[in-house]
Amino acid sequence: MDGEIPISTIDKELSCPRLNPKSTADLLYSVDAFLFDCDGVIWKGDALIDGVSETLDALRAMDKKLVFVTNNSTKSRRQYAEKFHSLGISVTEDEIFSSSFAAAMYLKVNHYPKEKKVYVIGEEGILEELELAGFTGLGGPEDWKRTVHLKPNNLFEHDKHVGAVVVGLDQYINFYKLQYATLCIRENPGCLFIATNRDAVGHLTDLQEWPGAGCMVSAICGSTQKEPIVVGKPSTFLMEFLLKKFNIPTSRMCMVGDRLDTDILFGQNAGCRTLLVLSGVTNLRDLGHSSNHILPEYYTGKLSDVFGLFNEYMDTF
Amino acid sequence: MDGEIPISTIDKELSCPRLNPKSTADLLYSVDAFLFDCDGVIWKGDALIDGVSETLDALRAMDKKLVFVTNNSTKSRRQYAEKFHSLGISVTEDEIFSSSFAAAMYLKVNHYPKEKKVYVIGEEGILEELELAGFTGLGGPEDWKRTVHLKPNNLFEHDKHVGAVVVGLDQYINFYKLQYATLCIRENPGCLFIATNRDAVGHLTDLQEWPGAGCMVSAICGSTQKEPIVVGKPSTFLMEFLLKKFNIPTSRMCMVGDRLDTDILFGQNAGCRTLLVLSGVTNLRDLGHSSNHILPEYYTGKLSDVFGLFNEYMDTF
Repeated sequence: MDGEIPISTIDKELSCPRLNPKSTADLLYSVDAFLFDCDGVIWKGDALIDGVSETLDALRAMDKKLVFVTNNSTKSRRQYAEKFHSLGISVTEDEIFSSSFAAAMYLKVNHYPKEKKVYVIGEEGILEELELAGFTGLGGPEDWKRTVHLKPNNLFEHDKHVGAVVVGLDQYINFYKLQYATLCIRENPGCLFIATNRDAVGHLTDLQEWPGAGCMVSAICGSTQKEPIVVGKPSTFLMEFLLKKFNIPTSRMCMVGDRLDTDILFGQNAGCRTLLVLSGVTNLRDLGHSSNHILPEYYTGKLSDVFGLFNEYMDTF
Repeated sequence: MDGEIPISTIDKELSCPRLNPKSTADLLYSVDAFLFDCDGVIWKGDALIDGVSETLDALRAMDKKLVFVTNNSTKSRRQYAEKFHSLGISVTEDEIFSSSFAAAMYLKVNHYPKEKKVYVIGEEGILEELELAGFTGLGGPEDWKRTVHLKPNNLFEHDKHVGAVVVGLDQYINFYKLQYATLCIRENPGCLFIATNRDAVGHLTDLQEWPGAGCMVSAICGSTQKEPIVVGKPSTFLMEFLLKKFNIPTSRMCMVGDRLDTDILFGQNAGCRTLLVLSGVTNLRDLGHSSNHILPEYYTGKLSDVFGLFNEYMDTF
């Protein structure tokens, strides 16, 4: 919807330029890999955003590398590939970098002992990635219907072998899970507190936003008075995997996202080019607001503008 | 349990003194009103702490005014009076200042319009206090079993007449409540975000601590990216009611509590004398920890020490 706002009047007040035919062409000529956020860029809830499929095809035809870097931890890479396919877009698992994967990789690169367990506030995606990486996950969907009994002499037990708690978006959050995670972090010596991401809200459905992982992560910050290790955007933890995959300098990568405080900041933190699309959570008012200090290199209404603007540019010859 | 730790060795490293017979007598002679926290001072979960009943009787016999200032919002003043009675302690409703009462009073003194509604993440106590103050509460226990349906074209509706959200401890927290509160704060113009308190954990049972209101409040901070108005301790909002009730200067009041960041800070913020008891969440290690900058005037193991130490003092004559 934001892509439809007539933006010419606000445009001139912004200190970052709107993408035009010339800058689109410059960007396409100087970038070898495009990093896309998914929610708000590729789709909204379960609905593909207009023109996305054609734009991705066009970029592949130009031999650009494409990867999808998403903070949404509810799915694994495999489940994301399935979602892409169900929407008619061909994407392979290894082109997907989700924060669920990031959480598992964080434990792996830090040599987290395989005999220890990982408690999860989150959904299937995190547990699947943990399992693929050889770790034992507890909690998640399994604890969905658990309740607590606040009775005298009734001790709430938790597994002393949990050495890490991973917190992501969890639509089945409850007091049982909050207590379990809190006890592990407060009572198991050295227990890690890992956040997939801290997005305040997200388009879990096409019609509106819902509390994001930032809600659950902050809840655990509130009960433990500890701050988490964030592995999703804007943390650049995943970037070393991308660099290994492509062997392309980050200056020749462009991060395309709909969020300033995750996507654009991630791109900037990593030294990438950045493009904000207005098809997700950020609108022009947010971008131009005096409280916002994160400015992308360019902004545009939606991803398919790139395709249209480049065609416009080519037509001038 | 903490009251039983032999504290003489750590004692000398602390820059606040342990209560002794002489300082107890000084305190009793110079204070007209004692303000008590409940959980960790009077009881732990549903078990009365040893010697409390006799100590309160002795203080009343010395003509001291007693009030109970609790951050626990799950009960109303009436329900607290009932709990005291069930434990064999005679306390009247108007001697109780709970954060549930504080939330209702905050709306009242700020002339919150009666035709507007208040959405509650919390338990019965908040709703009862809102009703007693003439306000219409929504949510709370009523939304305990509600679930969300993340389906396309399924809009989660919220009441546009909600002008305030009150968040307190809620053992029935779920995604429905988180979304409802988040929508009200983000979408209803001018909607207030009121926290009863931000305690990280509390002794909901005698055997262990559980996530406190700080957990639920932080969750809503995470999803709204807003900070709440806190009406419970350490905020001194309730102090004006105490001053009206007693007409005693705060320098002749003593706040007795088990928490540094709520009770002791509240006492200090209000200009009261302060006494930390180690029968609740704070132990000597916390008190003496280099990261702690909140020091009470005195500390002691448990409330009944006051009684014992004063008798010791009297025996010297």
